[in-house]
Amino acid sequence: MQIRSSFTPPFAPRGRAAVAPFPPWHYAADFLTVAFEAPEARVAEILPPGLAPDARDGAVLCTASFAAWQASTDEGEEFLDPSRSQYNECLVFVGARLGDQAVFHCPYIYVDSDLSMVRGWLLGYPKKFGVVHTTRAFPLTSPAAPSLGPSGRFGGTLALHGRRLAEGTVAIETEAEPEAPVFGSKPIIARRHFASLYEGEHDRPAVDELTRLHGENFQISQVWAGAATLAFGASPTEDLDLLAPMRVLRGYRYSVAMTNKFNTKVRDLRQAS
Amino acid sequence: MQIRSSFTPPFAPRGRAAVAPFPPWHYAADFLTVAFEAPEARVAEILPPGLAPDARDGAVLCTASFAAWQASTDEGEEFLDPSRSQYNECLVFVGARLGDQAVFHCPYIYVDSDLSMVRGWLLGYPKKFGVVHTTRAFPLTSPAAPSLGPSGRFGGTLALHGRRLAEGTVAIETEAEPEAPVFGSKPIIARRHFASLYEGEHDRPAVDELTRLHGENFQISQVWAGAATLAFGASPTEDLDLLAPMRVLRGYRYSVAMTNKFNTKVRDLRQAS
Amino acid sequence: MQIRSSFTPPFAPRGRAAVAPFPPWHYAADFLTVAFEAPEARVAEILPPGLAPDARDGAVLCTASFAAWQASTDEGEEFLDPSRSQYNECLVFVGARLGDQAVFHCPYIYVDSDLSMVRGWLLGYPKKFGVVHTTRAFPLTSPAAPSLGPSGRFGGTLALHGRRLAEGTVAIETEAEPEAPVFGSKPIIARRHFASLYEGEHDRPAVDELTRLHGENFQISQVWAGAATLAFGASPTEDLDLLAPMRVLRGYRYSVAMTNKFNTKVRDLRQAS
Amino acid sequence: MQIRSSFTPPFAPRGRAAVAPFPPWHYAADFLTVAFEAPEARVAEILPPGLAPDARDGAVLCTASFAAWQASTDEGEEFLDPSRSQYNECLVFVGARLGDQAVFHCPYIYVDSDLSMVRGWLLGYPKKFGVVHTTRAFPLTSPAAPSLGPSGRFGGTLALHGRRLAEGTVAIETEAEPEAPVFGSKPIIARRHFASLYEGEHDRPAVDELTRLHGENFQISQVWAGAATLAFGASPTEDLDLLAPMRVLRGYRYSVAMTNKFNTKVRDLRQAS
Repeated sequence: MQIRSSFTPPFAPRGRAAVAPFPPWHYAADFLTVAFEAPEARVAEILPPGLAPDARDGAVLCTASFAAWQASTDEGEEFLDPSRSQYNECLVFVGARLGDQAVFHCPYIYVDSDLSMVRGWLLGYPKKFGVVHTTRAFPLTSPAAPSLGPSGRFGGTLALHGRRLAEGTVAIETEAEPEAPVFGSKPIIARRHFASLYEGEHDRPAVDELTRLHGENFQISQVWAGAATLAFGASPTEDLDLLAPMRVLRGYRYSVAMTNKFNTKVRDLRQAS
Repeated sequence: MQIRSSFTPPFAPRGRAAVAPFPPWHYAADFLTVAFEAPEARVAEILPPGLAPDARDGAVLCTASFAAWQASTDEGEEFLDPSRSQYNECLVFVGARLGDQAVFHCPYIYVDSDLSMVRGWLLGYPKKFGVVHTTRAFPLTSPAAPSLGPSGRFGGTLALHGRRLAEGTVAIETEAEPEAPVFGSKPIIARRHFASLYEGEHDRPAVDELTRLHGENFQISQVWAGAATLAFGASPTEDLDLLAPMRVLRGYRYSVAMTNKFNTKVRDLRQAS
Repeated sequence: MQIRSSFTPPFAPRGRAAVAPFPPWHYAADFLTVAFEAPEARVAEILPPGLAPDARDGAVLCTASFAAWQASTDEGEEFLDPSRSQYNECLVFVGARLGDQAVFHCPYIYVDSDLSMVRGWLLGYPKKFGVVHTTRAFPLTSPAAPSLGPSGRFGGTLALHGRRLAEGTVAIETEAEPEAPVFGSKPIIARRHFASLYEGEHDRPAVDELTRLHGENFQISQVWAGAATLAFGASPTEDLDLLAPMRVLRGYRYSVAMTNKFNTKVRDLRQAS
Repeated sequence: MQIRSSFTPPFAPRGRAAVAPFPPWHYAADFLTVAFEAPEARVAEILPPGLAPDARDGAVLCTASFAAWQASTDEGEEFLDPSRSQYNECLVFVGARLGDQAVFHCPYIYVDSDLSMVRGWLLGYPKKFGVVHTTRAFPLTSPAAPSLGPSGRFGGTLALHGRRLAEGTVAIETEAEPEAPVFGSKPIIARRHFASLYEGEHDRPAVDELTRLHGENFQISQVWAGAATLAFGASPTEDLDLLAPMRVLRGYRYSVAMTNKFNTKVRDLRQAS
């Protein structure tokens, strides 16, 4: 009569209704990443306690990425029912320091799947719903199909509530430098935060902690690089435009794959504040 | 330099980027509710610890509702930018007992908005993304427009990942009986649960508790009632079909409004298990 | 062995697969309409041959409406499966003269349903896909629910490819004046145009004609009126912003119902050009 | 003052608002195709006058494909704003004979873009809106990412109004045989049909003709083949299930690119009937 084990709600008899299944979770994605510099003061005001801007001359290296993901569980093969497996995401990372370690923190992230959204919240990604598109490469030559190599051009867009929030492009020129700030190039420190709704506790969250995310079996394809553009739009519900690039750096096109199983608690922010 | 107060992530300088703003939250909705009986054993296996099926002769009174919501905050007027304010939802409630009190518990709920989804998770509603439609009433007579009164017919549907999960109809005959199991007719006991992703803690959630939800300034319109139909479909990711009606009872059409500000913790389930 | 009669493709054995079924088509809608003046020159450049701007002092009375529709056929009851019956639409009308008659012409219109889109093309409405939201009224008093009467405030929005194209609001003050330019207040002259794809015929359409649309059994509810706002946004695929209001007039909130069965050909534009 | 040339409505001053721009149109797509046999009688009842089933022993070779498209115009680079350039489509082709020539005809096709839908109607494709997903290949090895080669597994799904209408899978084993019935392997004969809405003309369409579609610069990648599954679902608005496979044959995964500029009229069906 008792419910089978379930990682998240809903708790249902066959255990398969959970929004997010038990880890490990396997991921693959095509990434379009634009690197840019944002002002140190702007980054400082969105970092959680325990992280400081990783700045040089008042500028912080940040990235905005447009990604097409496909994810599965161990037993999964969800990718054969791709509506359950695929999602598109726009991820913003800002350079930070955790003590003397250079890390990335993700203040803003937008996705089009509920599984990814809830899983993200559990990981410490503050995911909202957004509509994300990224140019697709094809193994053929056509005015409709950029090639994945020199002269290939790619674009990514993000919209929220019918407003264009981010647009980026990359014109591939060459293979990327080894130190390119691609996804996975630095540890990611996230903030897991779940508010409390009880009387007197609206400012005392049930959970508020820094978490280090771990990707196992991380793989990355050849990384292509080139000139890039990036612009953020305004919205009454967003602050992404406050991170407007001081300078747009290079752009990158590549694929990644990895597995996530366990993460590590870095610090409980409730005791810190 | 410090972030303005924010109820949930993202934590952003102007405080407006939070997925869910600070309570109070004001709600209004048009509801189509179908009452039905489900087997006691089926309800028992989806109730959290601390709740027991409220059964008579092996049957539990349950409801499936299709609702069109509009929500705002105090400063809000979000309803003037209705993409941010409106959402459609399918809610399933099962009759339960908390000690000697008759309550409702919501094991399954589907919505089409991220704000509603995250707010729901914080309240203890296990919300997933679903596509919900409900017949609209118009103040005119037309083959396209059911009237809100006797002979008016209304339908509601739910789909998930391109599969039809629920369909209900109500043919209004008369005003409803006072004891109609409409939204708000019994206290709602929810389960707030946030999984932990740290090593060795996959089955030890960070939060797992029973919560009593409080609606203030609850208003309800005239309630219309009539004959109803209801069917649940199957899906590889859902268990809703296990609650298939033993018997479909009456259906109801009505509107509600309320405010939610604080809730009450009933029991910490981590200590209970 | 022969296909059952079908009004449009697809032509399928049971005759029910047609995108648009045979007329008559029954419609009901809640409308939010903002009246505004656009420059005569701007209106002139979007009118088809045979229509002239209905201008006074260089200004043409136009309207932008946000509408929530529900439609059915004779045998229909599609409204019980509301995903098939409902759609949201943004309609722009400009004042024109057909000879000495004052009419409306619709140069731009956006909708979220394929049935409505194909039916619209057959009628002479140049429908594109857009995401439209309109504030909903509820029969209850709440900060989330404007009342349908004095002091009620309503908004409508349109987005296309993730860009906000139109936003309007109306703050109800009083009942509308009898001559309010609501939907149905003037005849609508549409342009039915179907391009040809044969060699040498790219600029010689298969169909290009002016059509007068006929609404039978037209009904309109009480019309509320008040102060309004309206703004059009820019997009690389649209020219709606060229119609930017010189002056925003009054706004209206009302419901309509009607039936469409036959229309009338006014003029074949292929012979005219 | 006159409108710039436009291939389709809307006719707007800058000429860019047309739903479909002037040809040529350039296309690239990733295809998942499942070949199957349908009964001759079923195919006969959906073919337009002038086409006969291409049957052997009462069975007709048909295909169902799930495709991810990207399209551009000459001046275009729409693929850099990919929301305007990309769409997903499910295409059903049935084997037919036009005189003594073996051709394909497309009785059912579903897409998620208005540009593709209107362009399709002008070409003679009876496009409806559908939600289509196809497994994505990645150049990395992961449980979430099938490889594009032997042992790679791919799935495609179609939903309409929240109902699952088609599901197919392909498990790649080897390179395909040269005569594989992939997209482009036979001429496509379409039916251009635009209904008339004038009194007495509901069954006398303004346009009803057979058209031969021409793809220029047709390219196709390596074609992979393997065992396949395919199933069609039921819907009150569709007849796709009447084409249910008598036998599922092989499945194929490949990419195509082409340009469409002109097509050829085969026969005017208004005179034929």
